Amino acid sequence: MRHVEFVGSEPDIPWLAGAVRDQPYLAAVSGGADSVAMLHILLDAGFTQLVVCHLDHRLRGRASTEDARFVMRMAARFGLPCEIGRVDVKAVMKERGESMETAARHARHRFFAECSRKHQCPRILLAHHAEDQAETILWNLLRGSHGLKGMSDEQVIFVQNTPITLIRPFLGVRRAALVAWLQEREIRWREDASNREPVALRNRLRNEVIPLMNEVSGRDSVAALVRAAGDFAELAGELSQSLDLPSLLDPAGRLHVPSLRKCSAGMQREALRQFLIAGGVASIDRRLLDQALGLLDHQRSAVINLPGGKRLRRREGRLWIAD
Amino acid sequence: MRHVEFVGSEPDIPWLAGAVRDQPYLAAVSGGADSVAMLHILLDAGFTQLVVCHLDHRLRGRASTEDARFVMRMAARFGLPCEIGRVDVKAVMKERGESMETAARHARHRFFAECSRKHQCPRILLAHHAEDQAETILWNLLRGSHGLKGMSDEQVIFVQNTPITLIRPFLGVRRAALVAWLQEREIRWREDASNREPVALRNRLRNEVIPLMNEVSGRDSVAALVRAAGDFAELAGELSQSLDLPSLLDPAGRLHVPSLRKCSAGMQREALRQFLIAGGVASIDRRLLDQALGLLDHQRSAVINLPGGKRLRRREGRLWIAD
Repeated sequence: MRHVEFVGSEPDIPWLAGAVRDQPYLAAVSGGADSVAMLHILLDAGFTQLVVCHLDHRLRGRASTEDARFVMRMAARFGLPCEIGRVDVKAVMKERGESMETAARHARHRFFAECSRKHQCPRILLAHHAEDQAETILWNLLRGSHGLKGMSDEQVIFVQNTPITLIRPFLGVRRAALVAWLQEREIRWREDASNREPVALRNRLRNEVIPLMNEVSGRDSVAALVRAAGDFAELAGELSQSLDLPSLLDPAGRLHVPSLRKCSAGMQREALRQFLIAGGVASIDRRLLDQALGLLDHQRSAVINLPGGKRLRRREGRLWIAD
Repeated sequence: MRHVEFVGSEPDIPWLAGAVRDQPYLAAVSGGADSVAMLHILLDAGFTQLVVCHLDHRLRGRASTEDARFVMRMAARFGLPCEIGRVDVKAVMKERGESMETAARHARHRFFAECSRKHQCPRILLAHHAEDQAETILWNLLRGSHGLKGMSDEQVIFVQNTPITLIRPFLGVRRAALVAWLQEREIRWREDASNREPVALRNRLRNEVIPLMNEVSGRDSVAALVRAAGDFAELAGELSQSLDLPSLLDPAGRLHVPSLRKCSAGMQREALRQFLIAGGVASIDRRLLDQALGLLDHQRSAVINLPGGKRLRRREGRLWIAD
């Protein structure tokens, strides 16, 4: 994660410099200021093969339909292909027993995967900006995930076995810079559509917690949160690089418990994290790593459950992932 | 920094187990619940040579004087020596042009140093608890110091060339546990005296920001902040251990710029941090490290100012601290 650039009205987006402009990209466009600015900035920068993708969450009745029409017209004006998906998030919530946040996220990912297959394009551009990033960091901090983590610039996710790459070039850009960019060019957007994620909690972080933190501290909390997460990512990256995982494996590729025990607590945690990632385990959080660390203690249980139905087992001083 | 233990009414204080009980300690006692509980817990645990130290900040008129009397009576009841200091913090603020927080902190440190000299005791016990720690972490985060840092369990500071060791055995203990401990034993304390530091900002973090974060997240923000800072400290500790500073020095003990340039950004920062600490530079923050990193660029200025009037210089591919 790179540090936020505090730009005026001209967004500074390092990703643009290195990107291949004549290959296809899916662009997630809600119709809000962020994603409308993203689309125009990409077009200005010479990206030629964009596919506009819009998922109607059907959470705001007629306004949702209007957002979708707005996005379709915009795509048509630029001669870009446009995919409009529709999902009844509330129905999905009931059906699957998921929270609104989870149901909406899964619905978006399924939609992106469909668009990705249809257009043979694994890359999807998202317009998350510094404020979104700060809210994510704060939320991860408050719910106690390991350390201070935000969204990644680039992240590969698997949706029904389809790998798609989420790309977020705007994480270092302030929302105000995007809005100013649009205003200078008299480009219109749909105001409410920018609350892409129908999450009350995120809105309260944005509208209540962060403004109070700004007021009390007299500082820019968004910048402070993004910087601190950058520091954390830097440290975690160093640690990750300095671990020699193969030296902790036996010839069968299992983790060698006596070697692992000789490592410091931080290195043990990092080794387990990398071992689980290599084993295809998704969503590794603090609790899972704490449980995995517990396996190093012979006195304690020799097996823990992993997300996705697998298990991590200890036997004869070795750890491995079993079905 | 160790992780918070979530105790019920019986505070769990690992420091007590390892401490030598028959050597002298200064104990900073404001008269508030935290420090009154600390004093009683220490006495219960068999600490025999305690010196009660109380600084009257003279910020609350008669109530301040009452706090001092309360502490004197308590010390007398246990037959402990008691030092009462008085400082007019508001006058110091004006005289030195310091903020109230800074003026009060410096006044406390000068008072501790006096007590330390008088009683030939370099150790002072402070009753900071998990809530104090969470507020410190949040404040450091918001003002943009590097990473997520709280107070140390043990910290050596120099006051007018006198080294004193601040010891905070209660950083892992919730305030509620201390209050419950006192209530069970029907031990009295002075309610307002517990706001040891006359800092509006800290009170707003305590009374407004943290409760709002608790409400919005539905989680225990104090615990989350303390845990995250613990994770950060763990990573930073790993990084610090894995750096081989001597390998980056020339025979004269100066930092070798070409070797430093080959390191990753995180390692460069850590090397500069350790080099500055070894050179006796106090209070190294993010901004200073960023400036020091700038010295690795031949195109840029070859000297930066350090706190305390010294400088860090670059010449012929070497960095060193000069007067």
